[in-house]
Amino acid sequence: MTEASVTPTTIVRADGRTPDRLREVTIERGWSAHAEGSALISFGNTKVLCTASFTNGVPRWMTGKGKGWVTAEYAMLPRSTNTRNDRESVKGRIGGRTHEISRLIGRSLRAVVDMKGLGENTIQIDCDVLQADGGTRTAAITGAYIALADAIEWAREQKFIGQKAKPLIDTVAAVSVGIIDGTPMLDLAYTEDVRAETDMNVVATGRGLFVEVQGTAEAAPFDRRELDALLDLALAGTDELTRLQVAALAASAEAVAGA
Amino acid sequence: MTEASVTPTTIVRADGRTPDRLREVTIERGWSAHAEGSALISFGNTKVLCTASFTNGVPRWMTGKGKGWVTAEYAMLPRSTNTRNDRESVKGRIGGRTHEISRLIGRSLRAVVDMKGLGENTIQIDCDVLQADGGTRTAAITGAYIALADAIEWAREQKFIGQKAKPLIDTVAAVSVGIIDGTPMLDLAYTEDVRAETDMNVVATGRGLFVEVQGTAEAAPFDRRELDALLDLALAGTDELTRLQVAALAASAEAVAGA
Amino acid sequence: MTEASVTPTTIVRADGRTPDRLREVTIERGWSAHAEGSALISFGNTKVLCTASFTNGVPRWMTGKGKGWVTAEYAMLPRSTNTRNDRESVKGRIGGRTHEISRLIGRSLRAVVDMKGLGENTIQIDCDVLQADGGTRTAAITGAYIALADAIEWAREQKFIGQKAKPLIDTVAAVSVGIIDGTPMLDLAYTEDVRAETDMNVVATGRGLFVEVQGTAEAAPFDRRELDALLDLALAGTDELTRLQVAALAASAEAVAGA
Amino acid sequence: MTEASVTPTTIVRADGRTPDRLREVTIERGWSAHAEGSALISFGNTKVLCTASFTNGVPRWMTGKGKGWVTAEYAMLPRSTNTRNDRESVKGRIGGRTHEISRLIGRSLRAVVDMKGLGENTIQIDCDVLQADGGTRTAAITGAYIALADAIEWAREQKFIGQKAKPLIDTVAAVSVGIIDGTPMLDLAYTEDVRAETDMNVVATGRGLFVEVQGTAEAAPFDRRELDALLDLALAGTDELTRLQVAALAASAEAVAGA
Amino acid sequence: MTEASVTPTTIVRADGRTPDRLREVTIERGWSAHAEGSALISFGNTKVLCTASFTNGVPRWMTGKGKGWVTAEYAMLPRSTNTRNDRESVKGRIGGRTHEISRLIGRSLRAVVDMKGLGENTIQIDCDVLQADGGTRTAAITGAYIALADAIEWAREQKFIGQKAKPLIDTVAAVSVGIIDGTPMLDLAYTEDVRAETDMNVVATGRGLFVEVQGTAEAAPFDRRELDALLDLALAGTDELTRLQVAALAASAEAVAGA
Amino acid sequence: MTEASVTPTTIVRADGRTPDRLREVTIERGWSAHAEGSALISFGNTKVLCTASFTNGVPRWMTGKGKGWVTAEYAMLPRSTNTRNDRESVKGRIGGRTHEISRLIGRSLRAVVDMKGLGENTIQIDCDVLQADGGTRTAAITGAYIALADAIEWAREQKFIGQKAKPLIDTVAAVSVGIIDGTPMLDLAYTEDVRAETDMNVVATGRGLFVEVQGTAEAAPFDRRELDALLDLALAGTDELTRLQVAALAASAEAVAGA
Repeated sequence: MTEASVTPTTIVRADGRTPDRLREVTIERGWSAHAEGSALISFGNTKVLCTASFTNGVPRWMTGKGKGWVTAEYAMLPRSTNTRNDRESVKGRIGGRTHEISRLIGRSLRAVVDMKGLGENTIQIDCDVLQADGGTRTAAITGAYIALADAIEWAREQKFIGQKAKPLIDTVAAVSVGIIDGTPMLDLAYTEDVRAETDMNVVATGRGLFVEVQGTAEAAPFDRRELDALLDLALAGTDELTRLQVAALAASAEAVAGA
Repeated sequence: MTEASVTPTTIVRADGRTPDRLREVTIERGWSAHAEGSALISFGNTKVLCTASFTNGVPRWMTGKGKGWVTAEYAMLPRSTNTRNDRESVKGRIGGRTHEISRLIGRSLRAVVDMKGLGENTIQIDCDVLQADGGTRTAAITGAYIALADAIEWAREQKFIGQKAKPLIDTVAAVSVGIIDGTPMLDLAYTEDVRAETDMNVVATGRGLFVEVQGTAEAAPFDRRELDALLDLALAGTDELTRLQVAALAASAEAVAGA
Repeated sequence: MTEASVTPTTIVRADGRTPDRLREVTIERGWSAHAEGSALISFGNTKVLCTASFTNGVPRWMTGKGKGWVTAEYAMLPRSTNTRNDRESVKGRIGGRTHEISRLIGRSLRAVVDMKGLGENTIQIDCDVLQADGGTRTAAITGAYIALADAIEWAREQKFIGQKAKPLIDTVAAVSVGIIDGTPMLDLAYTEDVRAETDMNVVATGRGLFVEVQGTAEAAPFDRRELDALLDLALAGTDELTRLQVAALAASAEAVAGA
Repeated sequence: MTEASVTPTTIVRADGRTPDRLREVTIERGWSAHAEGSALISFGNTKVLCTASFTNGVPRWMTGKGKGWVTAEYAMLPRSTNTRNDRESVKGRIGGRTHEISRLIGRSLRAVVDMKGLGENTIQIDCDVLQADGGTRTAAITGAYIALADAIEWAREQKFIGQKAKPLIDTVAAVSVGIIDGTPMLDLAYTEDVRAETDMNVVATGRGLFVEVQGTAEAAPFDRRELDALLDLALAGTDELTRLQVAALAASAEAVAGA
Repeated sequence: MTEASVTPTTIVRADGRTPDRLREVTIERGWSAHAEGSALISFGNTKVLCTASFTNGVPRWMTGKGKGWVTAEYAMLPRSTNTRNDRESVKGRIGGRTHEISRLIGRSLRAVVDMKGLGENTIQIDCDVLQADGGTRTAAITGAYIALADAIEWAREQKFIGQKAKPLIDTVAAVSVGIIDGTPMLDLAYTEDVRAETDMNVVATGRGLFVEVQGTAEAAPFDRRELDALLDLALAGTDELTRLQVAALAASAEAVAGA
Repeated sequence: MTEASVTPTTIVRADGRTPDRLREVTIERGWSAHAEGSALISFGNTKVLCTASFTNGVPRWMTGKGKGWVTAEYAMLPRSTNTRNDRESVKGRIGGRTHEISRLIGRSLRAVVDMKGLGENTIQIDCDVLQADGGTRTAAITGAYIALADAIEWAREQKFIGQKAKPLIDTVAAVSVGIIDGTPMLDLAYTEDVRAETDMNVVATGRGLFVEVQGTAEAAPFDRRELDALLDLALAGTDELTRLQVAALAASAEAVAGA
């Protein structure tokens, strides 16, 4: 935490955390036996299965440009939430929230990929929320990066991309922050999220640059000072998540279940 | 295995099993923190998350009859399979296979529920295939029974159903069988399934009665003798699955994660 | 009826039949002036119009393999039933039951077609229920075989398939059986179907081999002895239907309306 | 034919008719065993099954006004035509032509119904084209009137409408006319329809009043004189159809299959 | 007005017009900065934005025939009407009325286009109703002609079509007529339209030939004399609209906003 | 412009603006004759028609809470853009971008509405882009506020809301900002938008508080300093827009076309 953040660390949250702490984060790399890259990530009780599917080639409208493509889809299991939601497949249409988050994940990952380095290959990311307790989109982005990185390594081994190509130009992670009872807090659990006056999702690279900043006044508009405090808190959070991602990817290939 | 089954047990399968053996079956009861009943079941590499959502009340057209309702939905994650399948929510329509399996699971569970005993309550089962390696519908039925039983116990504790009501009149489990190179085999993995000349799914109760028998000639029509051998094999398999279900449900309440 | 069947033949049904009798079956071959093969088939009051549409060529993903394709679609007219059902075109989606039966018809027909013999040609079967009184899917399969056979003959005359090719390796027919008040009965009419404790559809070839066996416990699970009695009854029924199909196809070309 | 029509009657059409003749029209009243009213009508090779489904009551937004409702749906079987058309249920959407014709049939029937006389009852008409050879919408309207009339009689017998109520204030029939090679012709078959320079569908009551006039320049705009000749021809045609409708409805109740 | 029309011109309408008068018509040519041709047309309070989008080339099934294609889509903004209508995009399906009008506009325009003269080019017309007060389809056709004509001129300048080609063989305009309280009236406003006993839309060319005649008995069937009076009135209306179209197109290129 | 903003004002853009200038903004209040509130707003060549539809009452799930509801839908006409886009109604589904912007507009307006003050009334905002040249969502929000304010005044006059109720607790406006060639710029036109390295939409109240901040790295992640410069620029822009809104609403009732 930089000093600029005025977050009082003596406040204790329902789950015992101080305002500036992430929930326990676990990353189960290589969870899927089939996908070219995968991770089961948890932010506390939020659990998201992220898979990366590699295809040699790009959509027709992109061929011949020497560039690749990364896209993402997000969805929730019907009973991932406290009360059951109808399946979007049954409803026959995808809701606005689902669309919005799918697009956010795709943009966030593309921000750290050099499409020339990827070559004419496509990586499709799927983030399926198995259990939801707030922060599903931020967990999804953070886990999707792991799946993406492993799929790229797989493609290198399969010689679909050059041995010296470096399609990943940075790492990317995301976290939510919010103001609750006037206090900025990091990585909101569901019960905190519904109480937040302001809610912000920040996607940042390992180098600390912003990829996305999405702040919403849920209960009351916010001022510049509050915005600044939230940004400080978020960058500290993505910093910590970056360390966890690097550690997960440092594990030897043997330790990766799906490899 | 009864003697009637002519399955030669000296044949060894790709994964080392004899023709009359199930894959390793695990049942992680209470996997979901939210659902009233849940189980993560695996038949070898096939993993299905089954949740039961309890609602006090029934659809309007059923009210006032003193009877409950149990229904089910089945779906596969897009990368649960070896190559990715488009999401049905994105396609905007549910495929025939999905519909067919959802209906099969619902019918199978209703066969062991006394709807009067359940009272005017609804239980919605969701079976989501996280990883597929053959037998996803049979694993789903077998796991869904666990989720259903736990949701009924939950409802009893919550006093939504009477303390003496016995909505469950039997247990139910399912297994696939098939003929490969002329040999009847139990619980087919995906690579076996695609090679099978005949493929059959059998749903049976703990007492050994049939709920569903669905046999399909994939490569060549089959005769009565082959049908009999498959039925023998299947009943031995559902018998074994029944034992595993009973054991899982015997675990004390404390041992159940989601309780 | 073989002796193994314990069906008492002294029981008389609502329509005067003994338990082991089919309803009156009529096959109006060549009903359609446009289709390459067609039949209006009736099982009592159930009337299904079956057409076969022949296309030279196969879907793109199948070209170059020297094999053909047979597929089927089933549908009911909105007032084919006792009370009107909304059109699936108006609802904008096809129901699970429709999907399930379409798939069943397609599989049943493909089981008796040598796709190499058919060459790179596609036959699309349409089974439209004009009036329903139980057994629509079994009437559809039985009638569709006639339409299929005529379309193949048409294609031979048009020289789309070789003069010596024998794409049809057997005939195929289907019938329903069920247990009502403890008695196994053949070819259930609608009022019988809704009362059946167990309901089974059997698809078999002219040689008496099974193509599909789909048994469902509607009211109570069934034991092995009941299953055996139903299978006996069904095979006797498909045997009789085979004779009717052979007779219909033996009629001279002049007698076929649509030829 | 009135003298005003300048149609030369010495021209002979492909099917042997003079320009001012209808094709052979047959009306099989009471075709359906289930519907409250029904007719299988043919205009030459065009065959349309018309059913009327009676419901006691009206849609919620109409209740309490003492008035009834009549609505219609039109559809074609996929192989009713010379080459197969995809099902609208499979495509998931209803085409513009289907919508247009369904609306036309509904309006045409409502024009001869006194909604107060019908009372708070709904009649749903279904017109399904079993075989198409031009003029399917006009055959549908003409046959639908028979189904409607029988459903109203049925409702009177069931005492859903008063014994003295006269919901039908006139009869209604429809016919197509067109100009081919400069000659106005009545009741176009498909091969004529595609060649017509101008195509018109006329719906008229038994008293000779217009309900709908829909003229379209297919190949070349038309002048007032041509329009007049077409209207003359059409009114002569609907006159003849009215006579056939009256005759069909005059048959005794015993003679009606579905009564 | 020809004498044949019995329209009494002393009757005064709600907006002060005599029965044989159009509402004020304005044509704002070149409204759109992007479209190859466009017009914002108003018939009184009815305002329709018509754009023409030119594409070099035709749909695949039309290529190689040396002919072009013109098609149209019609839609209403949700609050173009007095009470808001749900968006068809939100409902997920296009209503019958929308389909019907889109098809009418397309046919009307194609009637005055020589497709050989257009060459292998496609013009897509969009008619969006910004504000509705009756006669939206007739205003749309009349305005769409202007957009079409300008898009053709644009294409000529761009050399997509030959300098001497004359794809437009006539002009086309449309107007509604109806009988209200026994009086035939021209160009109905919404409050008149809902009261009309009979309602007719007439599409005619600048030379006074009919392209479409669509008359509907809303409240009571109509006789031949009434039909004749309506046709007289309509042709006088389209004549006047033709003059306005010619005047609008005569404005110099500099005066066209979007040129 | 505050000094904190490092925007060099000597740079001149394609349309002659300095980096810190809005395009010409016009607000045509009361454009619609039907809607309870409306505005046609333009930001340069971007033109959006905003209407507010007032309904007395709220959706069923909200009744009895004494609170109102405000919701919004956004859409683009097919040829509002440089090349035509297919209609979402024709595609049968709403795209992610449309969903996202509709939700953003709704949230932005609700942030300045006191739902208790609105009472149990619903206001539906429609923002239809007639012509697009970048910034359609920000123009939509800014114009929608005018429509909303007028609909609330209308409701007050109609006595649907109390004479002293103050449902509007602040004004709201929105603007886009972006970094182009390293320079932060205000209110991007389309050609600027596609070149921007970073793109941000800011929604702020008249008091200068943030309602939404959505920043996206299009080409390269951005640092804290850049974020700060963009926020400065945006707040200056929304300040200016607020002044224009206040001026538009200050016009006398007589001057408002739709009043």
